[in-house]
Amino acid sequence: MTDTDDPALCDALEETAEAIATMETRGAATIAAAAAEALAEQARETDAESTAAFRETMRAAGRRLYDTRPTAVSLPNALRYVLGRMDGSTVPALQSSVVEAADAFRTRLDTAQDELGSVGANRLRDGDTVMTHCHSTDALACVEAAVEQGKDVSAIVKETRPRNQGHITARQLREMGVPVTLVVDSAARRYLDEVDHVLVGADSIAADGGVVNKIGTSGLAVNARERGTPIMVAAQTIKFHPDTLTGHTVEIEMRDESELVSDEERADIGDIDVENPAFDVTPPRYVDAIVTESGQFPPESIVTLMRELFGESAAKPWEE
Amino acid sequence: MTDTDDPALCDALEETAEAIATMETRGAATIAAAAAEALAEQARETDAESTAAFRETMRAAGRRLYDTRPTAVSLPNALRYVLGRMDGSTVPALQSSVVEAADAFRTRLDTAQDELGSVGANRLRDGDTVMTHCHSTDALACVEAAVEQGKDVSAIVKETRPRNQGHITARQLREMGVPVTLVVDSAARRYLDEVDHVLVGADSIAADGGVVNKIGTSGLAVNARERGTPIMVAAQTIKFHPDTLTGHTVEIEMRDESELVSDEERADIGDIDVENPAFDVTPPRYVDAIVTESGQFPPESIVTLMRELFGESAAKPWEE
Amino acid sequence: MTDTDDPALCDALEETAEAIATMETRGAATIAAAAAEALAEQARETDAESTAAFRETMRAAGRRLYDTRPTAVSLPNALRYVLGRMDGSTVPALQSSVVEAADAFRTRLDTAQDELGSVGANRLRDGDTVMTHCHSTDALACVEAAVEQGKDVSAIVKETRPRNQGHITARQLREMGVPVTLVVDSAARRYLDEVDHVLVGADSIAADGGVVNKIGTSGLAVNARERGTPIMVAAQTIKFHPDTLTGHTVEIEMRDESELVSDEERADIGDIDVENPAFDVTPPRYVDAIVTESGQFPPESIVTLMRELFGESAAKPWEE
Amino acid sequence: MTDTDDPALCDALEETAEAIATMETRGAATIAAAAAEALAEQARETDAESTAAFRETMRAAGRRLYDTRPTAVSLPNALRYVLGRMDGSTVPALQSSVVEAADAFRTRLDTAQDELGSVGANRLRDGDTVMTHCHSTDALACVEAAVEQGKDVSAIVKETRPRNQGHITARQLREMGVPVTLVVDSAARRYLDEVDHVLVGADSIAADGGVVNKIGTSGLAVNARERGTPIMVAAQTIKFHPDTLTGHTVEIEMRDESELVSDEERADIGDIDVENPAFDVTPPRYVDAIVTESGQFPPESIVTLMRELFGESAAKPWEE
Amino acid sequence: MTDTDDPALCDALEETAEAIATMETRGAATIAAAAAEALAEQARETDAESTAAFRETMRAAGRRLYDTRPTAVSLPNALRYVLGRMDGSTVPALQSSVVEAADAFRTRLDTAQDELGSVGANRLRDGDTVMTHCHSTDALACVEAAVEQGKDVSAIVKETRPRNQGHITARQLREMGVPVTLVVDSAARRYLDEVDHVLVGADSIAADGGVVNKIGTSGLAVNARERGTPIMVAAQTIKFHPDTLTGHTVEIEMRDESELVSDEERADIGDIDVENPAFDVTPPRYVDAIVTESGQFPPESIVTLMRELFGESAAKPWEE
Amino acid sequence: MTDTDDPALCDALEETAEAIATMETRGAATIAAAAAEALAEQARETDAESTAAFRETMRAAGRRLYDTRPTAVSLPNALRYVLGRMDGSTVPALQSSVVEAADAFRTRLDTAQDELGSVGANRLRDGDTVMTHCHSTDALACVEAAVEQGKDVSAIVKETRPRNQGHITARQLREMGVPVTLVVDSAARRYLDEVDHVLVGADSIAADGGVVNKIGTSGLAVNARERGTPIMVAAQTIKFHPDTLTGHTVEIEMRDESELVSDEERADIGDIDVENPAFDVTPPRYVDAIVTESGQFPPESIVTLMRELFGESAAKPWEE
Repeated sequence: MTDTDDPALCDALEETAEAIATMETRGAATIAAAAAEALAEQARETDAESTAAFRETMRAAGRRLYDTRPTAVSLPNALRYVLGRMDGSTVPALQSSVVEAADAFRTRLDTAQDELGSVGANRLRDGDTVMTHCHSTDALACVEAAVEQGKDVSAIVKETRPRNQGHITARQLREMGVPVTLVVDSAARRYLDEVDHVLVGADSIAADGGVVNKIGTSGLAVNARERGTPIMVAAQTIKFHPDTLTGHTVEIEMRDESELVSDEERADIGDIDVENPAFDVTPPRYVDAIVTESGQFPPESIVTLMRELFGESAAKPWEE
Repeated sequence: MTDTDDPALCDALEETAEAIATMETRGAATIAAAAAEALAEQARETDAESTAAFRETMRAAGRRLYDTRPTAVSLPNALRYVLGRMDGSTVPALQSSVVEAADAFRTRLDTAQDELGSVGANRLRDGDTVMTHCHSTDALACVEAAVEQGKDVSAIVKETRPRNQGHITARQLREMGVPVTLVVDSAARRYLDEVDHVLVGADSIAADGGVVNKIGTSGLAVNARERGTPIMVAAQTIKFHPDTLTGHTVEIEMRDESELVSDEERADIGDIDVENPAFDVTPPRYVDAIVTESGQFPPESIVTLMRELFGESAAKPWEE
Repeated sequence: MTDTDDPALCDALEETAEAIATMETRGAATIAAAAAEALAEQARETDAESTAAFRETMRAAGRRLYDTRPTAVSLPNALRYVLGRMDGSTVPALQSSVVEAADAFRTRLDTAQDELGSVGANRLRDGDTVMTHCHSTDALACVEAAVEQGKDVSAIVKETRPRNQGHITARQLREMGVPVTLVVDSAARRYLDEVDHVLVGADSIAADGGVVNKIGTSGLAVNARERGTPIMVAAQTIKFHPDTLTGHTVEIEMRDESELVSDEERADIGDIDVENPAFDVTPPRYVDAIVTESGQFPPESIVTLMRELFGESAAKPWEE
Repeated sequence: MTDTDDPALCDALEETAEAIATMETRGAATIAAAAAEALAEQARETDAESTAAFRETMRAAGRRLYDTRPTAVSLPNALRYVLGRMDGSTVPALQSSVVEAADAFRTRLDTAQDELGSVGANRLRDGDTVMTHCHSTDALACVEAAVEQGKDVSAIVKETRPRNQGHITARQLREMGVPVTLVVDSAARRYLDEVDHVLVGADSIAADGGVVNKIGTSGLAVNARERGTPIMVAAQTIKFHPDTLTGHTVEIEMRDESELVSDEERADIGDIDVENPAFDVTPPRYVDAIVTESGQFPPESIVTLMRELFGESAAKPWEE
Repeated sequence: MTDTDDPALCDALEETAEAIATMETRGAATIAAAAAEALAEQARETDAESTAAFRETMRAAGRRLYDTRPTAVSLPNALRYVLGRMDGSTVPALQSSVVEAADAFRTRLDTAQDELGSVGANRLRDGDTVMTHCHSTDALACVEAAVEQGKDVSAIVKETRPRNQGHITARQLREMGVPVTLVVDSAARRYLDEVDHVLVGADSIAADGGVVNKIGTSGLAVNARERGTPIMVAAQTIKFHPDTLTGHTVEIEMRDESELVSDEERADIGDIDVENPAFDVTPPRYVDAIVTESGQFPPESIVTLMRELFGESAAKPWEE
Repeated sequence: MTDTDDPALCDALEETAEAIATMETRGAATIAAAAAEALAEQARETDAESTAAFRETMRAAGRRLYDTRPTAVSLPNALRYVLGRMDGSTVPALQSSVVEAADAFRTRLDTAQDELGSVGANRLRDGDTVMTHCHSTDALACVEAAVEQGKDVSAIVKETRPRNQGHITARQLREMGVPVTLVVDSAARRYLDEVDHVLVGADSIAADGGVVNKIGTSGLAVNARERGTPIMVAAQTIKFHPDTLTGHTVEIEMRDESELVSDEERADIGDIDVENPAFDVTPPRYVDAIVTESGQFPPESIVTLMRELFGESAAKPWEE
C-alpha cells in the first residue's frame, strides 16, 4: 500500500516512515513527534520549484507516513496539524509554515502532559480521594501535579482485570507518596461514597463526546453519576480521534482469552466462549470534564477543539 | 452465652445445637432443617404438664438453638416459623402444632429450590441470554428448570473476582448444556445489550427490599437498569433477613486481602491498603423481581411475605 | 381436553361451560360471574355423600370450567376465589361455604366498577385534565364518578392507532359532558404539560407489578414520568393475572396487519413486514397508583392483594 | 352534624367527644388514645340486650366520636382499629373484644415512639450524620435511640422557613448531646454529600406510598436521591391516612402569609401574592424506608400494613 | 413590506425574489441556492462606484430576498453565509468575495446530503436496525450510503400519524433493498430493544440544541434514551435556525383537524376539539449526535457551528 | 504585591488601579469598563519607542490592574479581552489595536444587559410564569424586555433566605407591572408545575459548564429538571470565570452566621454550628440555556465562547 519509491521524499522521512511501520517507533506521543519532525525535514530539504510541486511533495510525504499505521490516532493528528497549517504564496513561505507548525506541534507535545496535569490538579482539592481505573500517565500526571501543589490526595485503585494495570497505577501512586487502597473491579460502587473524583485516562476521544477507554470505564461512570461523584477524563489532544468527525465508530480490540483463564482453568470449566474486549465507550452525559493541555472541556464541546486543532471533518490534507 | 444444662431440653435438641455450634451442621438450608426437626423432637419428647411449662420449654429450646449462631439468617427464620405457629389450649394441641409447623417448614425447604427454579424459568423465554454474577444454586435452578422446559438459554458469566466463582457457574451451566461466554467483571456493561435478564442469587434480602449479594451486584444492577435490562434475583425465603424488619443493617464481611494480591505482588507494589468486601446491597429500585418458592415478588413487597412467614418485626418467639 | 361426560357435574354447570367454550358467554366480568354461579349451582345440587366426594366433585367442576378457556384471566380468578374458600367438616358446611363465596364474588363483581370509579374519582380534583389511551370502561368509570361528584374534568384523548378506540372514548366522554380534545398518539408528549393525570385501564396486571395494556401505554408512561405527570391505572381485581404469580409472562397478541395498512397501501409501499402487537407491559416504576374496587395500591403491592383474593402462587384449587 | 342526644351513649364517651370537639383533647396520639378508651368505656357500660343492639350502640359511639373532627387522621384510625376487631356471638364476647382491642391499641400507642425510635436507630451507624427538615418527635426518637445505643450521630438541621421549626429540632438534638449544624433551606443540597441519611417525620402517609410532610420535604428528597443519600421517614402507624385507601387526596393547608412577610415588608414590596402551603407530598420512589413501631417498610408496601391494622379500604365500621 | 422598485437591484435578483415570494421556487435547499445565486448575480451586475454604495446595494438585495419569506430557515442562512463573507477594500474585491461565497455556499448545498449521508452511514454497522419517524431525505441518505458501503441495514418504520409519511419512508427504503417493518406509532417502545439507532431528520435545529421535528420525535427520543438506544438526527446545516441564536423559540404549526378525523367521524363522536401540531422539540439531552455535511456533533455544540457558518447571534448582514 | 512605582504607567491607569484596589470602583461591569478604559489611556499616552517596549508597558499595565483584585472575575476578562487583541508591527498599529479593543469591549458592556435581556425575553412567551431565586439584574432584564415586547409575564419569587433578596426581586418586578407570588424556598417544588421557566442569574460561569449562583440554585434546578421545567441562566459574558479554563474550582464564600440566627436565637438553641455558604454550583446537565449578550448557549458550549472572547486557557496576556 505504501509508496516507498517516491524520489521526492527525503531520506529522513523514509526512515521515520520505516521506523513507524516496523513499530521501532511506538507510543502515541513518540509517533506523533516523529511524524511532525519528518514533515519539517521534508519541507526543509525539498527541491520543489513551484508551490504546486511543494504542496504535492508534502502531500506525498503525508501519505507515506499515514499509510504506515492508518489506525493509530496520533499519527493522522500530527499530519492534520502540520499540513493543515501549510500556507504561503512562495515556496519559502510554505516551507517555513510547515517547519513552524511542526515545531509548534512538538512543543505542544513536550509540555502537554505537564500542562494537562496542572489543569487536572486544579480540579482536585486538598484531602480528595480519587478512584482510578486501569493505568494512564495522563491521569497520574493530574495526581502528581496535585501532590506538587501540596495537596494531600488519596487513591482507591481498581485492579482492572484481566491485566491488573491497577497494580502499576498503585505502584506509581505509592512512589508519589499517595496512600493507595486496592479493590477488585466489582467493589468500585461500594467505595464511590468515599471518592471525590473518578479519574481515568482515555485511549481516544470521539467527536460525539464518547470516551474510549479501558473496558469497565463506562460501567464505573454510570455508577459514579448515580452516586453523584464527578468523573474526570485526562487526555492529551492527540488522543482526539479524527475519523470520528465523519461518524466513524472506533473499533474495539478483542484481546486474547488467555488473559482471563489459563489453559488448565479452561479445561476444567469445559467448552465455553471467552470474550475479552479491551475498551468500551462512555457516553458524554456520564463525563463531567475532559482535561487536556488546552484546558478543561465538557465532552460535548471537544468536537470544536478537535476541528480547531486538526481541521474540518473531512480534511485529510495529504489527500487534497 | 448458651445454657447447655437446661434439664428440660431433650438430647436430640442438644445434639443438634452442638452440631450447629461446631459447624458440623452447616449451609443455610441444612441448618434450618436441623433446627426445625430438633424443635419437633423437643415437642414430641416433652414431659411438660402444663401449657405454660410446654411453652417455656419450647422457648428454651429456641434460645438454645438461636444462641449457637445468632448471625446466621436461616436459623432464626426456622425458629420464627415453627415457634410462631405454636398454638393450642392443651399440651397435645401445642405439641402437634409444633410438629406440624416443623414438618411444613421442612417440606417447604425440600421443594423450595425446585419451585423457585420453576418460577424463575417461567420468566425466561426460549432463546434468552442471562448474565450471571458469582455462583448461586438458586439462580442456576432457574436456568436448569428453563432448560428442562425445553428452552434454549445462553449465559454470559462474569468471572467475579477475586474468587472467580464465575468459573463454578460456568462449569455447572456447561453441564446443563448451556452455552457460556466468560468475561471479566469490567466487561459486563459492554455485553448488557446482548443480555435478556441479569440473574443473580442473594446472600440475604432485607425488609426494605435491599438485596445483599456478592460484591459487584449493585453496580451491575445500576447499569442493567440504565440499559433497560431486567434484573431477577433468585432467593429462597429462608434468605429473608429477619433482623432487618427492625431496621438492622446487614453487616458486610471484609475478606482477606490475599484474595486480591499475592504477597509477591504486594511487595512489588509497595505499601498499600487492600479492601476486599464480600457483599454489597442493591436498592430495590434496581431489581425487577425476586423469585422465591412462594412465587415472584417486586422487592418492595418482600417485607409482607417476610412477616407472613416469619412473624412480626419484633417477634422473637423464643424470648416472649 | 374437556371432560364433558362426568356424571357428577350438574346440567347448569355443563351449560355454563359450554356457553363459555363457544364464546356465547364473553367479556371478563360476565365469564367470571357465570363461572362462580355455576360452582354455586353445582354445590347446591351435589349428591355427594362424603366431604371427600364433594371436594372431588367441586374440583372436577373447576377443571371443567377452567378447560373451556384456560387463557382468560377472569375465569381462573373466579375459580380460585370460590374454590379457595371451600371449607368445612361436613358436606352441608362445604356446600354453604361454596355458595357464600360465589355470592360474595358476584357481589364484588356487581359493584366493582362503581367502587373502583369512586376511588379513581377521588384522585381527581375539580378542574383536572386527564389523558386517556385506548378505551377502558374502568378508566371511564373514574371520570364518570368524578363528574357525578360535581367536578369539572377535561380530557385529552389519544386516537390510539390502529383501531382508533380513542373515538369511542371521546364519544362516551362527550356523553358525560366532558370536554374532549383528540390528538394523534405522537402528540401525547406535546400535551403532557396540560395534563394532570394519565388515566388508562389494563388488560391484566402481573404479580411483578407490570401493567399489560394497549400498545403505547408504556411509552406514554415513560414520558409522563419524565414530565412529572402522575399515571393512574384503573383495573378491577379480576384483571390480576394469576399465572404471573409463578413467573409466567403474559403472551402479547399480534393482530392482523390489515389494521395498519390496506391492501392497496401495502401494494403501493412494496414488500414490507407489518408488526401489530396489541399490548405492551409498563413496568411498575412508571405507574403511580392502581385503582381497584378494593382501593388504590402502588403497583409493587398488587401481588399481596392478588394472593389474598386468589390464593397462593401455585394454588390451582381445581387440581389439588 | 353530631348527635349528642343518643341516650345509649354513656357519659364517658360524651365527655371524650366533647373534649375532642372543643380541642381540649389534642395531639394525634392523645386523641387516638382517648377515643379508644371511650369506646372501651361504652362497651363496658352498655345495657344492650342483643348483639345487634350492642353493635348498633358501638357504631353510634363511633359516629359520635368521628363527627367531632372528621379530618384528624388518628381518630378514624383508632375507631377502625377498635371497632374493626369487634367480634363475638354474645354480648359479653362482643364487649370483651372491644375492650381488648382498645387496650391493645393503647398499648401500641404507649410504646410506639420508643419502638419506632429503636427501629430507626438500627438504620443509623456510629458516626453517621443525619439531615433533618422541620421538627418531628418520631424522627428525633430515632436519633435519641441511636445515641442511647452508644452511637455518635451528628445532625445538619435545616432551619425550615417560614416557622423555623429547625430551631426546636436543633435545641432538642443539642439536649441529646448531638452536634448540630444549622443551615438555610437552600443550602441543603450543598451539604448532602456530608449526610448519611435524610431523616424526616410525616404528617401523614398515603395508601399510594406518598409521604405528606412539611413543605420542602419532597424537594429535599429529590435532591437526596440524585446524590445517592438514603431517605428515611419516621412515622407511627396512626399517621397512616385511611381516606387515601379510597383514593382521596390529602388536603394541603395554606397558612397565613404573615409567616413569610411582616406588614411592613409587604407594604415596602408592593402588591404581591404570598403563598404559604404547610405541606407537600413526596412520591414513594424518593423514599427508601418508612420506619414505624411495626418495623421498617418500603413506602410501596405501607398500604398492606394500613389495611391489616385499620381495615379494608371502604371500611368505616361506624357506618356499617 | 418589500421594496420591489429599488433601481439598484438587477433583474435576476428581482426574478428570484418574485419566484420565492410566489412559492414557484420552493424547498429549503432550492430556495437557499436561488438566493445565493441571485446575490452573486447582483454582485456581478452592480454599477456601484464606491465600496459603500456596493455594500448598500448588496444589503438592499439581501433585504429584498429576506422579505419574501422571512420565516423560511434556509433563506436567511443563505443571506448570512454570503453577505457575512463580503469583504474587501475595493469594489472588485467586494464583488469577488460575494461571488466566491455564493459559489462556496452552492457547492456545499450540492454535496451536503451526500456528505451528510456518508457521515451518518459511518455510525451504522453491518446488520444494524434503524427506527425511523416521519420521512426525511437527510435521514434516508444515511441509510442509502450505508447500503452503498455494503452494510445490511433493516428498518422499523413508524407510520407517523396523521399523514402516514412512514409509508413514503417505507417505500423508499424498499427501493434501496432495505427490509422494512411497519408499526403504529404507539408500538415504537415495544420494538426499541430490536433497534440499534433511532434515526430521524429535522425540520430545524435550535441554538440551544433543541431539535424541531415531526410531532412524536421527542416522545420517541425519551423512550429510546430510557432503553439505551442511541438517537441520531440527520440535518444539513441550512436547517440551523438563526433566529434561535437570539433566544427566539420556533413557532410550531397547527395543522388542519381533518388530518385526524373525517367529518363523518367527527359528527359521530360529538362536539370535541382536535389538536394537530405538526412538530415538537426534542431537548439536546435526548440526542446522541447530529449528523451534518460538516461531520457529526453533539447537539450542545451545534451553536458553535451555527455561528461559524452563519455569523454572530444578532448578525443580519442585510440590516447592518 | 502591586508595583505602584512603574514610571512607564500613566497617571490615569494608576488612578484607576487605585480606585479598584480601594473598592471605590466596584461592581463587575464598572470595574471591567474602568480597566479597559485605563488600558486605552495607557496605550494612547505611551512614549514607548519600540513595539517591544510598548508591549512590555501594556503588560505592566495589565499586571498593575490585575493585582488590585485578582479574585474578581470581570477584571481579568477585561484585561484578556483588550490585551489579547493587541496586534500590529508598529507602535501606532499596536496603539490603535488596544484602543479599538478597549472601545469594542466597553461598547459590549454598555449594551450587554439590554441585548441579553432581549435574548432571554425571546425565550418567554405571552402568559408565562417564571420562578426566580435571589436577585439578578441580568435575569430581571429578561423579564423587563419581555414586558416591553408586550408579553404578560408572572413571577413566583423565592424569598431566598437568609438575606431575602427575593424581596428586592419582588419589588422590582412589581415596578415592571409583573404580578408576583412570594414563597419560602422550601415551597419551590410545590409550585414548579405552575412555572414555565426557572430564571436565575449567575455569579460566574465555569468552563465545564457549571453555574455558580446563590445557594439553592442547584437544588432548584434538580427539581425543575425532574418536573420538566426548563432552566434559563442569564449572565453577561464578563461573568465567565477564566481561571476555570485551567481547571480551577471556584471558591465558595462562607458568610456570617448572623444572617441565619440572631444572638438571642443562638443562645436559646444552644451550642451549634451554623454554616452559611453564599453560592453553589449547578452542573450543566441541569441547565437548558445560558443567555448572554452574544445570544443563548447550552452550558456545555460556553467554554468555546469563553476562549473566543477571552483567549486560550492559559493565556494571561499580562504575563506573556
